[in-house]
Amino acid sequence: MHIEEQLANMGLGLPSPIKVPAGVKLPFSFVRVYDGQAYISGHGPQNADGSIAGPLGKVGVDLSVEQGYEAARLVGLSMLGSLKRELGDLDRISAWLRVHGMVNCAPDFAQQPAVINGFSDLILALYAERGAHARSAVGMAALPFNMAVEIEALVAIN
Amino acid sequence: MHIEEQLANMGLGLPSPIKVPAGVKLPFSFVRVYDGQAYISGHGPQNADGSIAGPLGKVGVDLSVEQGYEAARLVGLSMLGSLKRELGDLDRISAWLRVHGMVNCAPDFAQQPAVINGFSDLILALYAERGAHARSAVGMAALPFNMAVEIEALVAIN
Amino acid sequence: MHIEEQLANMGLGLPSPIKVPAGVKLPFSFVRVYDGQAYISGHGPQNADGSIAGPLGKVGVDLSVEQGYEAARLVGLSMLGSLKRELGDLDRISAWLRVHGMVNCAPDFAQQPAVINGFSDLILALYAERGAHARSAVGMAALPFNMAVEIEALVAIN
Repeated sequence: MHIEEQLANMGLGLPSPIKVPAGVKLPFSFVRVYDGQAYISGHGPQNADGSIAGPLGKVGVDLSVEQGYEAARLVGLSMLGSLKRELGDLDRISAWLRVHGMVNCAPDFAQQPAVINGFSDLILALYAERGAHARSAVGMAALPFNMAVEIEALVAIN
Repeated sequence: MHIEEQLANMGLGLPSPIKVPAGVKLPFSFVRVYDGQAYISGHGPQNADGSIAGPLGKVGVDLSVEQGYEAARLVGLSMLGSLKRELGDLDRISAWLRVHGMVNCAPDFAQQPAVINGFSDLILALYAERGAHARSAVGMAALPFNMAVEIEALVAIN
Repeated sequence: MHIEEQLANMGLGLPSPIKVPAGVKLPFSFVRVYDGQAYISGHGPQNADGSIAGPLGKVGVDLSVEQGYEAARLVGLSMLGSLKRELGDLDRISAWLRVHGMVNCAPDFAQQPAVINGFSDLILALYAERGAHARSAVGMAALPFNMAVEIEALVAIN
């Protein structure tokens, strides 16, 4: 309970609304609520001001695994920001169900789980057993705006 | 309401059933209906006769972003064709929930959202607020038959 | 009914619990059950002892399509092993809904469906009409531990 208090206790805050880069149209919903579930669009790492957080590029080439882990943690905060704006209260999330973690990487990179753990560790620290989720962590040829990590997810809400 | 009338008003028609290339087996359902939802398999762009629509290849290399956008729009028509055959009536779709847009591209391509907008713009033009959806638009190393775009989705039905 | 009997009749057995490679943390649930559905994490091919099954690498480069097909079949057995441990009885699965098949491949590989058929053919042989599923079969830049195939899925349970 009281997820935002826990965030504050961890020294973390939610970023400002996502700033879409100039000239880009994103004609979809960051969170789509329907029938007790919230479908969450692919999110990337954000700075506190809402802009895309670097370093950009491919994990294993432009970012270390540790930097990838931190990017995935920022994706978690970005997603929680969108959920807060849509749901009003992060404690309405009763269960995390599915996490699809996508890592921008070269063809010889094989440590996607260690990167996406930055997201999973945050969600589990905040939501404990409600945070348990099925997950894939896989390697993409490329991601929008050359982001290092993008994650989509599904949660149950009440 | 009356999605097919709107399609006709837009000068668009649904393609014939998907023609599977010779020698290829696809042992799955293009649309799987269960408990008020329709799970939609990955679809590619189709010609009116049901064959795979070109240009084939990678967006940013073999196709421009504009050609990728058009391919994504054709994926939307292909998917609507499958949904019409399965559901009987496209007005049975009460909500678009999740869209996973996959773009065949080179490792340095970063405009996946501009490509998948071809799909989202079509769905929103037809379904308005019912068409709102969560979305990811990401870059794949390769796609079946060297298609430029493949999209899978989930809708609620009544 | 009696899926395990059918497996035995086919000369197949379920592998031991997944052995995570040394030093790797996987802080998620292989199967997440919620409200009549089981969300299944990305699974790879396993040996009988629970270790990751080779050959590792990219289909079309390090593995033939036939070897990729066999790897996808092993993914099916791995997933059924996780489902057996979570659900107690594989006959509790009332419907396969969504299969997302990811093939580790080079940018010029285009036979992902022929690879993922190794999974679909197994599920259909075991579950018949309950095994019908929506599916995507796509090409990834890279996969964890350099596995050749990873598949995530969703099933309905009772």
